Amino acid sequence: MNQTTERREAVQVSVDVVLLTLVEQQLHAVLLRRAAAPFAGVWALPGGFIHTAEDADTKASAARVLQTKVGIEGAYLEQLATFSGPARDPRGWSVAVAYCALLPAQSLPPQRDDLCVVPVSALPQLPFDHRAILDAALARVRSKSLYSSLPVHLCGETFTLPQLQLVYENVLGEPLNKVSFRRKMDEMDWLEAVPGALQGGAHRPAQLYRVKPAFRQELALSPRGL
Amino acid sequence: MNQTTERREAVQVSVDVVLLTLVEQQLHAVLLRRAAAPFAGVWALPGGFIHTAEDADTKASAARVLQTKVGIEGAYLEQLATFSGPARDPRGWSVAVAYCALLPAQSLPPQRDDLCVVPVSALPQLPFDHRAILDAALARVRSKSLYSSLPVHLCGETFTLPQLQLVYENVLGEPLNKVSFRRKMDEMDWLEAVPGALQGGAHRPAQLYRVKPAFRQELALSPRGL
Repeated sequence: MNQTTERREAVQVSVDVVLLTLVEQQLHAVLLRRAAAPFAGVWALPGGFIHTAEDADTKASAARVLQTKVGIEGAYLEQLATFSGPARDPRGWSVAVAYCALLPAQSLPPQRDDLCVVPVSALPQLPFDHRAILDAALARVRSKSLYSSLPVHLCGETFTLPQLQLVYENVLGEPLNKVSFRRKMDEMDWLEAVPGALQGGAHRPAQLYRVKPAFRQELALSPRGL
Repeated sequence: MNQTTERREAVQVSVDVVLLTLVEQQLHAVLLRRAAAPFAGVWALPGGFIHTAEDADTKASAARVLQTKVGIEGAYLEQLATFSGPARDPRGWSVAVAYCALLPAQSLPPQRDDLCVVPVSALPQLPFDHRAILDAALARVRSKSLYSSLPVHLCGETFTLPQLQLVYENVLGEPLNKVSFRRKMDEMDWLEAVPGALQGGAHRPAQLYRVKPAFRQELALSPRGL
């Protein structure tokens, strides 16, 4: 805080959320069509201003934006970084606290005209500095997937180990060695078999796993990476 | 940004800087005595409001705070995280974009009554959520030191490899194996010997090193950690 009494200048504060999911083995971002100026009608990241009467912090603001504007709850949400400056928003000097959210595709909201789910490899032009925010989110998710349980938030509640490995491979954009992948998952000790739950035909059905309770909010970390 | 026209509420935005240095092989934080309310006279993190007329972004605000309030330039500066909420500042709902700065002890400003350099193991009570911000900075610096060149920003321009290893050990709070430390530094390929510069007596003087130009602004990363 300030040492001497400074004038507090009006700075616009918003939250912007990069909401990622996996569709057909590709990372997709959820975009909303802006209803109001600036950039009315343009596809953009979900976002909004702080509601000081209801938001406990900017993470709560981001969760509220996902609930009220996207129509989802329970997405994994983490702070990405804060973007700022005089030019990023035509309304003046602004601060955007950016969040990264991950959601399984089956939890996406029903289709709507003002919502689209776009492959991150085929994004439309985005307003403000939303492209830089989205690129930062992709870099964060990919680097963090190398040493954590982050990608599991793109999976449903239960999954087989081959399904989990495929999700990691889709996020990282590269194949992983099955043996070392499973050893890393064992070392991280964050998965538990669902008793009696198998998937697949009578011929070699696969065990279903889920995240241990301790790791449903917290990420599991691999000290040495995948 | 917002989908529908929302009222933009007044949210106070500041930057707070956790400025760390190494004194007598211990991490120390630089604190300033607050001149104005709230918490006038209390030791706190250097910080201040955004100056929209001069600041290009919040990182520039943080650099300006270090220059004008602490009296230093050229410290390594990276965004830590943004802290927010209705209660962290008695003046109301506020957002603090926190930065972490590292400085060699020899670059600290001259002694002043309103500035102190305190071991992070013996911090006074701090106002606002400055203790949480400082703890987050320490966690970031320690975790990042395991796989990057970050600690070098606590060293002077040139240093011997034993001096660099000691800085890493002081930050991490644990001894490192000399052979594997030097192998990691080689792998990261971010150091260069200063031609003809040796330190120490005629008996086995040590080569002085400096950071390669490419890594003076960017961190060098170790893919597998130390």
